[in-house]
Amino acid sequence: MTPSWRAGDLATQLSLGLSGNPDTVLTGVGTLQSATASQISFLANPAYLKYLTDTQAGLVILSEAHASDCPTNALISDNPYADYARVATLVSAKPSATNKAVIHPSAHIDPDAVIGDQVSIGAGCVIGARTVIADRVHIGAHGMIDADCHIGMDTQLAARVTLYTQVSIGERCLIHSGAVIGADGFGMARDGDHWLRVPQLGGVIIGNDCDVGANTTIDRGAIEDTRIDDDVKLDNQIQIGHNVRIGAHTAIAGCVAIAGSTQIGRNCLIGGGAGITGHISLCDGVVVMARSFVTSSIRKPGQYSSVTPFQEHQRWIRNAARMKQLDKMARSIQNIERKLSDDTH
Amino acid sequence: MTPSWRAGDLATQLSLGLSGNPDTVLTGVGTLQSATASQISFLANPAYLKYLTDTQAGLVILSEAHASDCPTNALISDNPYADYARVATLVSAKPSATNKAVIHPSAHIDPDAVIGDQVSIGAGCVIGARTVIADRVHIGAHGMIDADCHIGMDTQLAARVTLYTQVSIGERCLIHSGAVIGADGFGMARDGDHWLRVPQLGGVIIGNDCDVGANTTIDRGAIEDTRIDDDVKLDNQIQIGHNVRIGAHTAIAGCVAIAGSTQIGRNCLIGGGAGITGHISLCDGVVVMARSFVTSSIRKPGQYSSVTPFQEHQRWIRNAARMKQLDKMARSIQNIERKLSDDTH
Amino acid sequence: MTPSWRAGDLATQLSLGLSGNPDTVLTGVGTLQSATASQISFLANPAYLKYLTDTQAGLVILSEAHASDCPTNALISDNPYADYARVATLVSAKPSATNKAVIHPSAHIDPDAVIGDQVSIGAGCVIGARTVIADRVHIGAHGMIDADCHIGMDTQLAARVTLYTQVSIGERCLIHSGAVIGADGFGMARDGDHWLRVPQLGGVIIGNDCDVGANTTIDRGAIEDTRIDDDVKLDNQIQIGHNVRIGAHTAIAGCVAIAGSTQIGRNCLIGGGAGITGHISLCDGVVVMARSFVTSSIRKPGQYSSVTPFQEHQRWIRNAARMKQLDKMARSIQNIERKLSDDTH
Repeated sequence: MTPSWRAGDLATQLSLGLSGNPDTVLTGVGTLQSATASQISFLANPAYLKYLTDTQAGLVILSEAHASDCPTNALISDNPYADYARVATLVSAKPSATNKAVIHPSAHIDPDAVIGDQVSIGAGCVIGARTVIADRVHIGAHGMIDADCHIGMDTQLAARVTLYTQVSIGERCLIHSGAVIGADGFGMARDGDHWLRVPQLGGVIIGNDCDVGANTTIDRGAIEDTRIDDDVKLDNQIQIGHNVRIGAHTAIAGCVAIAGSTQIGRNCLIGGGAGITGHISLCDGVVVMARSFVTSSIRKPGQYSSVTPFQEHQRWIRNAARMKQLDKMARSIQNIERKLSDDTH
Repeated sequence: MTPSWRAGDLATQLSLGLSGNPDTVLTGVGTLQSATASQISFLANPAYLKYLTDTQAGLVILSEAHASDCPTNALISDNPYADYARVATLVSAKPSATNKAVIHPSAHIDPDAVIGDQVSIGAGCVIGARTVIADRVHIGAHGMIDADCHIGMDTQLAARVTLYTQVSIGERCLIHSGAVIGADGFGMARDGDHWLRVPQLGGVIIGNDCDVGANTTIDRGAIEDTRIDDDVKLDNQIQIGHNVRIGAHTAIAGCVAIAGSTQIGRNCLIGGGAGITGHISLCDGVVVMARSFVTSSIRKPGQYSSVTPFQEHQRWIRNAARMKQLDKMARSIQNIERKLSDDTH
Repeated sequence: MTPSWRAGDLATQLSLGLSGNPDTVLTGVGTLQSATASQISFLANPAYLKYLTDTQAGLVILSEAHASDCPTNALISDNPYADYARVATLVSAKPSATNKAVIHPSAHIDPDAVIGDQVSIGAGCVIGARTVIADRVHIGAHGMIDADCHIGMDTQLAARVTLYTQVSIGERCLIHSGAVIGADGFGMARDGDHWLRVPQLGGVIIGNDCDVGANTTIDRGAIEDTRIDDDVKLDNQIQIGHNVRIGAHTAIAGCVAIAGSTQIGRNCLIGGGAGITGHISLCDGVVVMARSFVTSSIRKPGQYSSVTPFQEHQRWIRNAARMKQLDKMARSIQNIERKLSDDTH
């Protein structure tokens, strides 16, 4: 039987005001455009306001400002997206088959590893010596956890996560498939005509409540540890170089690259595809726009950008070609201004 | 014994005109520069025309226009690259040892999974409950297919592909190693001083005849599904955000990032390393040049670019520094023009 | 018992001059800021000179020029970073538990594979037919080595490396987790309204002393092989297209993408996040600055850049908007100059 919720009970549970029929029965979530009479939707991004008046949803979570435009039952929220997140978490909770606290017989667990209570370890996992897996941790199939790691309570690793030695992950983290944490940083010294590898001797320390996206890589430190503080959210295919430090509550979108020894402050937002050069620091509260490249330290909170506009190719190439003449153009303007100024005098 | 083909038989099989000796025996393919007298080559990219006159190939596939320059046997084609693809497919076909329809004894297959005929499942694979694997599917070693997935007939997964729950892949697809399909989209709501995870409840639906490159990631939808239509070709290390839709026959080169909820039309070409921001749409027939960043919707087919030229570093840095003064420069020009115009009157 | 080293013995072993007490006992390494009296530090990057005078390290490796500022024992080196690399290698060497020459019973090794002496093969590995694994190779858990590969002596594969068929890796290489070597290049021919796959028939040949970073992908050649020469260093999440050739001693930082059929010379340095288009060549000794995009061949050694500066967003968007008017601005300047010149005559 599909689980269901009364609108009135949801309002009580979330401490939100309800406008409409408390006995409406709801069984899931949907978008404003697609939700049916038994589904809950939400309005957070104003771009979707146009879909509100025609929605068929049984209940919509929205702000007071939009309540009068809502054609159906509404939960009035100061933060509709956060309250939607709570409702969706409630509605989607189910005993997952892959989440049962079972240690698969094909897992290879070192006898010196320490495994907590209600831990689930999937098929083919390898857990190294002296590694500590705390209570209620879930490690998906083919997880590779090398020696001397620590995984905190209630953390979940999806299938096929790789941790090298000396990686510590906090509590309630979520690490997605293909993530590689603790590989060597890119350290090498030129010695005559060839390269010498510089041993990467630090580890990686990740705080509580962090997310790491699919195929993201976080390198171990060269001497000290690479450190990711609490509640840092990393999307897919991010590259974090050795010795990097990232402050709490910072969120980083997909495909960002952060070069070695750089420090990112707390509560920063780094847009998708951005790059941040090595050996610099960004203070707290910095927002880097998507695809921007930060080449020096930022000491003042605010938004920063190096985004290049796009245009139809034929027009753009004429403009882009001029970028190689910009300094000449600027000096021409100065010359003209000087000349005109001379003429005036 | 190495299999071989008569030039005349190839011409018949491909319905192409042959210029030269139909009894020439061919055993493989090569480039114009390296092919020997028993190998087949082709000329499609005009940049390689310079190698035609000296080629040692036994047979060259080329267009009528270049037939008179060909020093050896030639197959005359309206589309030499496509006909080369057909010949190379023929010549390289062999019973692969890894392609035998065998279910490896170390695979972990849920009793509620449904496995078709002539399916091959490699060592260590995990197949979840209620997942359906259609006939003649090949799943390479260490494939992780979670519950409630569907893989269509004749699709091949290379070693180490990961599918989260509720991922559907069509027929005749080819998915490369390290691809992660169905990981959570990057959805979170700010709640006071910390982040709340927004459950990602949609799935991923991939059509027929699609390719997914190595280490490419395709996120599951937040509420509805992420959708990739038929004959979409994705290269390596591409990131596709949640709720993205990609139209049929679109090809996307390596390292492209497409942010959440964006729609790409049919028959688009997205160059390598390009980025496309979230919540926009590109119409059918759009070409985005390599490394360009598209920040708003495109409603007209054609080529678009934001490529920055490159230069010797010392010259470039002087030009690049002027980018931060561009608005000032533009206003100086306007002032000068106004002044000169005033002087004239 | 922790192993320890006398300062005087280190000086002898590295053939370096020692300034200070040869009987100082050292047990590990640390940064200038954090090292204790029993630790060895180094000064290579001048940005860290400010930490020298207060360092608590027991020994510092530095150049003659900084010896007089050193408050503790010093090893005087012409190349402090390379000598640090040697010391750190010495100090960190230990019998690794994962490095024992053991073939895990859960590995699946084809009877036609050839395995050398003192080879270590981790849990769940798959080794294909006719693959040759030379002496002292270490293959981490879940390594997937398909048929007809060759891995040279003393090469190490971390956990979860994937090699398709016909991949050859030289001696003393180090390949990190998630790397995929030999997946199909992105080759397809347009045939009417759909795509035909072009078989990718070449292999990959990697020389001696190469490094490949985590989640890096190197595609197999279309007809001939993709080739990486000796002592090439590749960081994480790099994408190397089919038929690419990279010359010896070239180092490439994270997230670089090199499109198909491009040739990179010897002793090049490619900065993080850079892109290099297909079918071009870079001569020996080229330095590409981070995030730059190279769109045509480079025939002269030196530094090249297309880096865009960054700025506070509100100022930047005004400047960036002008990029779409650059050609018009340049022509306005020329018109003004012409007009002023006419006025003069």
